[in-house]
Amino acid sequence: MAESRWPTHELPVGDSVSRLTVVEQGADIGAVLAGWLGERDLFVVASRPVWRLHGDAVLSGLEKETSRWTLLEVPDGESAKTPAVAESLWREMASAGARRDCRLLTLGGGSVCDLGAFVAATYMRGVAFSHLPTTLLAQVDAAIGGKSALNLGGIKNLVGVFRQPEHVVAAVEFLATLPGRQLRSGLVEAIKVAALCDGELFERIEDDLDPLLADPRCAAWRDLIAAAQRAKAEVVAADPHEAGERRVLNFGHTLGHALESVLDYEGLTHGEAVAHGMRFAVQLAVGRGLDGDVARRFEALLDRLELTETLQLTGLEVGPLVAAMRQDKKARAEGIVWVLPTGLGSWEAVVLEAELVAEELGRFLASSRDAC
Amino acid sequence: MAESRWPTHELPVGDSVSRLTVVEQGADIGAVLAGWLGERDLFVVASRPVWRLHGDAVLSGLEKETSRWTLLEVPDGESAKTPAVAESLWREMASAGARRDCRLLTLGGGSVCDLGAFVAATYMRGVAFSHLPTTLLAQVDAAIGGKSALNLGGIKNLVGVFRQPEHVVAAVEFLATLPGRQLRSGLVEAIKVAALCDGELFERIEDDLDPLLADPRCAAWRDLIAAAQRAKAEVVAADPHEAGERRVLNFGHTLGHALESVLDYEGLTHGEAVAHGMRFAVQLAVGRGLDGDVARRFEALLDRLELTETLQLTGLEVGPLVAAMRQDKKARAEGIVWVLPTGLGSWEAVVLEAELVAEELGRFLASSRDAC
Repeated sequence: MAESRWPTHELPVGDSVSRLTVVEQGADIGAVLAGWLGERDLFVVASRPVWRLHGDAVLSGLEKETSRWTLLEVPDGESAKTPAVAESLWREMASAGARRDCRLLTLGGGSVCDLGAFVAATYMRGVAFSHLPTTLLAQVDAAIGGKSALNLGGIKNLVGVFRQPEHVVAAVEFLATLPGRQLRSGLVEAIKVAALCDGELFERIEDDLDPLLADPRCAAWRDLIAAAQRAKAEVVAADPHEAGERRVLNFGHTLGHALESVLDYEGLTHGEAVAHGMRFAVQLAVGRGLDGDVARRFEALLDRLELTETLQLTGLEVGPLVAAMRQDKKARAEGIVWVLPTGLGSWEAVVLEAELVAEELGRFLASSRDAC
Repeated sequence: MAESRWPTHELPVGDSVSRLTVVEQGADIGAVLAGWLGERDLFVVASRPVWRLHGDAVLSGLEKETSRWTLLEVPDGESAKTPAVAESLWREMASAGARRDCRLLTLGGGSVCDLGAFVAATYMRGVAFSHLPTTLLAQVDAAIGGKSALNLGGIKNLVGVFRQPEHVVAAVEFLATLPGRQLRSGLVEAIKVAALCDGELFERIEDDLDPLLADPRCAAWRDLIAAAQRAKAEVVAADPHEAGERRVLNFGHTLGHALESVLDYEGLTHGEAVAHGMRFAVQLAVGRGLDGDVARRFEALLDRLELTETLQLTGLEVGPLVAAMRQDKKARAEGIVWVLPTGLGSWEAVVLEAELVAEELGRFLASSRDAC
């Protein structure tokens, strides 16, 4: 059993520990997972396009650690997150004789993390699983925090459980295979957690953004991913089941999710939707006294991602967006909860009246259209 | 909000607490759940026969505590525990606008507990749920311990999660509606946990068995159910995810599950299958040095349940039973784990060679046939 030489951050959550490791170009991923695999049965969940792109490289590492592996192929993207696909994976695992001591590894973006974690968390009441995220968004966000999910009846993430992965291995080399738009969108979640929880990280992104965007092989990526993972991990460790503090991660997501829902998840990436949501939250926060300089720094950093050309707010109306927000999982009987910055690295959660939100949203949509 | 006047045992598991309450004839069940319901949306999971039998009585209590309740009707028995039924309940809840702060209550036997807990634990990553078990088996066993389950591909409980119910309310009055065979079968699980974990409870069952069996309204039922719940609860609290100590609850289940599987869950109740399994485990334990007097006390108490007339071991063969044991969730790569008594109130877990098990099982089946 080989030992990993990569620095690993341990995230204790309840009675479990997630190990977060960022590995550089050409790293042996199998070595990072060696003790965890230990010749046990392994099930790898991946879509065909991702498997074609990364399967050989990943396998060459894993096969040194276990010879008994099975590929569970799933549809690409959100369409994988259905009860039918979950059921087919449960059946495939049972047919292959999977016991509770087997291991499951996801290889892919956020959708594969969500689906694979759900299947692992529910097969025989839970088998150990790890994530090998291939997108920046999944590396800094979706793979961290123990959320698993299926979509149902048009509602995203309606079904799922909280359960922590044992390892999250973020391989920087995957970034070079991402379209630029995906890379920029992934940065939004890193900026989100930095803005409200880690002012130092926010400043580092301000400093490093140009070289990062210019080169997915830039050395600064490793540090950025590790820091963003840790910032999120600290929030999750303090509140694994989203009972309080973890709400901070919802910054930008109240409107973001509503945009995705109203647009039927077409035309906008998740990061783009969240960026819109962050801008709107900043507007609401300024109305409640957020310092104008801080607001401008948030907006300026989002501007530098140059996401705006892909944002399509034209034609959207206030009513359906407010209705979608009311259906959000985080909505409570008493109203919609907003996470708003109160400064760099600080925040508050507030319930705002629907009329106020609708009025502000009308202004926001109008000014976004003007800016196009 | 009314306060319950019934004594409640708190079972802390991880960062959650299950409250176990036994209520007597004519108790107001709504009052026990009052603070928990607190005018929130309530979803009641029950089969049609159970709802017909108990719905009015239960509702009269619940409606004082919340006016917003929805019945989620499910098939009776094990046939309810499918992914398709779970999906239909997720959809019904979403259509009814269920939010994360809603409440789910199961009313029924072990199958409804298993299914309802799974749906609650996975809807929006978990809504609070409680059990109102209507069978003795569910009151002393299935409702306690946070197991949830679906069956799939012919494998019982293949899919599920661990998550604790917030309340388990055992109403003694439900016992009077149970067929005698169900009552006797339910006692097997109480005897199981008493035999290996609580010698005092075992002796109390020895003393009280005749009046208990003679009258489901006998006052001793309340104390028996409360004591059996606590004995199981202590085991669960020490090992909620079945990593070690909790294996003791598998006493009698290694062969018991195999019998149910080979007989396709026909002809034997779960308690009857477990009773068989306990007798076989006692035989194995005697071979490893269990005191003969203790073995005879275990057997004598099971004899007094008079389950034997319903046991159908004729025609069963060793091979398929051993094969079924190898497929059990608790099986590990290195073999089948047996939980065996080492005395009254003490036990060991051992891995036995398949040949030894097969040989002993042949003897056990032969002697059971002779006894018929």
